Amino acid sequence: MNEHIPKSHPRHRSLLLRERLVHGLEAGLTSRAGLIAHGRGEAFDYLLGERTHDFAREAIAAASALLWTARHPVFSVNGNVAALAGEELAGLAKAFPKLKVEVNLFHWSEDRLTRIVDHLEGQGIADVLGLGETEDLPGLESARRRMDRRGIASADVVFVPLEDGDRCEALVASGRKVITIDLNPSSRTAQRASITIVDELTRALPALQAQLVSDRGRGEEELVWRRTIHDNADVLRRAIERIRQGAV
Amino acid sequence: MNEHIPKSHPRHRSLLLRERLVHGLEAGLTSRAGLIAHGRGEAFDYLLGERTHDFAREAIAAASALLWTARHPVFSVNGNVAALAGEELAGLAKAFPKLKVEVNLFHWSEDRLTRIVDHLEGQGIADVLGLGETEDLPGLESARRRMDRRGIASADVVFVPLEDGDRCEALVASGRKVITIDLNPSSRTAQRASITIVDELTRALPALQAQLVSDRGRGEEELVWRRTIHDNADVLRRAIERIRQGAV
Repeated sequence: MNEHIPKSHPRHRSLLLRERLVHGLEAGLTSRAGLIAHGRGEAFDYLLGERTHDFAREAIAAASALLWTARHPVFSVNGNVAALAGEELAGLAKAFPKLKVEVNLFHWSEDRLTRIVDHLEGQGIADVLGLGETEDLPGLESARRRMDRRGIASADVVFVPLEDGDRCEALVASGRKVITIDLNPSSRTAQRASITIVDELTRALPALQAQLVSDRGRGEEELVWRRTIHDNADVLRRAIERIRQGAV
Repeated sequence: MNEHIPKSHPRHRSLLLRERLVHGLEAGLTSRAGLIAHGRGEAFDYLLGERTHDFAREAIAAASALLWTARHPVFSVNGNVAALAGEELAGLAKAFPKLKVEVNLFHWSEDRLTRIVDHLEGQGIADVLGLGETEDLPGLESARRRMDRRGIASADVVFVPLEDGDRCEALVASGRKVITIDLNPSSRTAQRASITIVDELTRALPALQAQLVSDRGRGEEELVWRRTIHDNADVLRRAIERIRQGAV
């Protein structure tokens, strides 16, 4: 990219993320298809005014409640998530050690999987899963059906940001609760997840980390109540409304 | 990408364009930044329902009138345009030989420029400009300021699809009429151009070709009238309205 953009540039942050992604492509973490997918997200973030809205904060609070009350929550990482948010994910995993991290790839190869595991462990995340023995998630044909026995296969809550609709659907159909981060509130993933955070990944993860920390020690009853009353359809409706306003 | 999608797939066409772009990256025509930019466009096209709307047809009719009544119209090609629409551009240039084609790059190198010129000439476009003597377009710092003396430097009308706002502005400020194709009606390029076709490139170019053919032999007075009454602000307003509806 070779774009040297001053911090004052209105699109500074967006350009930094592009650089992370291009480095990720060079390091063999992400794919070219991932670059195009990122561009789609950029357009939606532009329409959202590139900020975290109330409807995202509500979903983040519900996600924190669901994660605290989960038996075995697992965070599923693909190439774009690794390239864009390795640092933010490491912060989250450190603040909330119960959350296991598992790599899951569409364009699967052992080489690429190992590279992503190494990258995440290099960021300070311990015991990244995905290379161990796997089981298949029913209803999915691509390599993304693979679930590590110690990870998603035995999880009750799966956090799958930037995910395709078919995997989100298959995870929901398997009886697991699904949290996602997706900038397009009309996507199949956004519509099918249990909790949808309509926000940019590297803004949402630190916000979730802060929420998890502030919820530490909170009573189970309050957390269960918070996740029970969460109205994901309402969140999505408000996000769509905001995108409509953004198209000015 | 290795995506083998049946023709019946609802996103067949969108995936074909991705393949063209990835081939363009492999062939050294386009840049990784170009892939992200394409993704942004995809999101807007999704909100537009992936079809050519009335406001685009109106702009295409005005563009045809402007091109027929121009003294020296030039079509400016960047890496994404070459990778996505070489074939469609060749059809247009053949149907309307007055239109010269010139390559203009942000990430400039003589090697890359030569590669794109060769690619376009291989598609059947004669005498592609960009490698000849150049002048500088005032107000622009990047390599995109270069104007071929036989091309944009002496042009009265410049057709610049998928362009950044600063170059569009500099071309307008230089007194030239500018036609663009841009899927984001709120972009600086869309807002500043004389005529903005809010549509996907490979849909719009064949539609423009058909319009140019149907306008052949039409009286100058009628064409001047048509381009004079064209209301670009109204076109943009309607495109924004449609995108708002698309966010459902």
